[in-house]
Amino acid sequence: MFKVPEHQVAGHQASDGKLGPLVDDLGRFYKPLQSDGRGSKELAFYETFSSDTRVPDHIRRFFPVFYGSQLLEASNGSGKCLHLVLQDIVSGRINPSIMDVKIGSRTWYPGASDQYIKKCFEKDGKTTTVSLGFRISGFQLYEGEESGFWKPGRNDVQSFTVDDVRSVLRRFVSSSSSIGNEKPDCSFAPSIYGGSAGILEQLLELKAWFEDQTIYHFHSCSLLILFDKESVRKGSTPAVEIKLIDFAHVLEGKGVIDHNFLGGLCSLIKFVSDSKESSITANVESEKPHDCTSNGNCITITSRTLVRPIDLTAKEAVFINGFPCKKPVR
Amino acid sequence: MFKVPEHQVAGHQASDGKLGPLVDDLGRFYKPLQSDGRGSKELAFYETFSSDTRVPDHIRRFFPVFYGSQLLEASNGSGKCLHLVLQDIVSGRINPSIMDVKIGSRTWYPGASDQYIKKCFEKDGKTTTVSLGFRISGFQLYEGEESGFWKPGRNDVQSFTVDDVRSVLRRFVSSSSSIGNEKPDCSFAPSIYGGSAGILEQLLELKAWFEDQTIYHFHSCSLLILFDKESVRKGSTPAVEIKLIDFAHVLEGKGVIDHNFLGGLCSLIKFVSDSKESSITANVESEKPHDCTSNGNCITITSRTLVRPIDLTAKEAVFINGFPCKKPVR
Repeated sequence: MFKVPEHQVAGHQASDGKLGPLVDDLGRFYKPLQSDGRGSKELAFYETFSSDTRVPDHIRRFFPVFYGSQLLEASNGSGKCLHLVLQDIVSGRINPSIMDVKIGSRTWYPGASDQYIKKCFEKDGKTTTVSLGFRISGFQLYEGEESGFWKPGRNDVQSFTVDDVRSVLRRFVSSSSSIGNEKPDCSFAPSIYGGSAGILEQLLELKAWFEDQTIYHFHSCSLLILFDKESVRKGSTPAVEIKLIDFAHVLEGKGVIDHNFLGGLCSLIKFVSDSKESSITANVESEKPHDCTSNGNCITITSRTLVRPIDLTAKEAVFINGFPCKKPVR
Repeated sequence: MFKVPEHQVAGHQASDGKLGPLVDDLGRFYKPLQSDGRGSKELAFYETFSSDTRVPDHIRRFFPVFYGSQLLEASNGSGKCLHLVLQDIVSGRINPSIMDVKIGSRTWYPGASDQYIKKCFEKDGKTTTVSLGFRISGFQLYEGEESGFWKPGRNDVQSFTVDDVRSVLRRFVSSSSSIGNEKPDCSFAPSIYGGSAGILEQLLELKAWFEDQTIYHFHSCSLLILFDKESVRKGSTPAVEIKLIDFAHVLEGKGVIDHNFLGGLCSLIKFVSDSKESSITANVESEKPHDCTSNGNCITITSRTLVRPIDLTAKEAVFINGFPCKKPVR
């Protein structure tokens, strides 16, 4: 009945006998409570939040539905363990493209232990958290039947630079392949990032709430962004959905807005907006040589043939910061 | 010809033979270049900024006019020293009320030395910088001919809590005296914070620019907010002015918005907006006992007589976190 989630892109994963979340066939997501107090803090948040009448409905839809908690056999075989029972956000989706974006220019929270703050502070500086106000924690991008998913490893994603993040946000909405070395054309940006139900509009709705709400401060939370790229290819809607997840470090706002989350959210909005804008100019610039990644190792690409998944280990495939590239011809 | 500025509320001050800025009678402000490289970095910023055509005029007005640099006898008698020559923002104002608000939830900048980051990090946590996304660095509030200025000392201001900041922002726009222990009524808020030329409208204009501009990152900058409270008492306009100052740590934005500044600015906007709203409800609540400061030491105040400056040293005067209060009757 319970199984390991197929489309998890970040966080602890219940594979190889480790403790991680499980899903069922009824659209529920079971997240084991971590033993260091985070689990019980997250449970307490969901309990408070789910009955908080100050949160308007149009904002509540950005949070997974909470169904309570349940004792369940842990995925690592360690016996019964309390799990949060949540809505399985990807349930019913076939080949979803997903991005987990941790929001805020700091992930530590006031009042945490010095050791915890130090650990977060260092990681924030090594990732784009400090520079961008957010970092990509993980993603998968469906590239079509032939190529399957583009899903770089955790270490690759964590070493993303600001330019890598920009590139990934463009590749997410491009008709060109990311697994090959084609330049992102952002041609799907108008329908995925734009439009009244698009990502940008939803982020702006969240932003308006964060400019005003002083109830909660969401430290180290992620925005999970989901959409269906295949639908766009076929001319239908991308079924965009945005959810906030990971609430182990939510504190009371006490009359102050969550300026840390809001600043990062505005930065993400600007990046998404820029990607949308660049879809207009993409064709004009398509003849120019380009950088496949930020580091400039891949300047001029002459071959544009698709690289199938099986080819990624082939001699001519080059990985740069987790980006698969055909060997550049200089 | 040169003299010590009369209305400086924060920063190094040229009194008692120390190095600090000077002003002349022609409306110019002379800021000595600090020797640790900050001075030359600030000069470089002003030189770049003053010819930067990407900055629109409606934003440029938020910056002091830059007239170049000049060798000048230093205020501490150490001989000639290079000074920035800037517009004297308070020139021509009689009894201005001024607040210096350092914006951002961190004052350190990426790339600074570990020692500098550590120093800033600690001070940010001790002040409201981390919790609020901004801190008041200093202020003076004109209370009328009898009482003169309310201008707490640097240490008092630096120990302000979130509630103290909220209280000061209300006292700034209240007809009631701050030097006495009267409850802030926020009755001037509609004309000082509100209105088409009010503080809120100007802050929102700045905010719109910060949501989009990726040219500069303003670390450890302040917003100087000036207005004329006496004019409001007399029924005329408060002549509100807002200027950004202190640019020793401005870095290139490199295509990323200044999410640290923007988050803090949004937090300030929310506080100012709340003070404006509270002017509507102030009268309803005026009969309730109140906290004079956040720490609850001064619960019920029965005597509402004004305390003149000369009385502040009297036995019955109580200072709590820099707020002068009549001894509370419990």
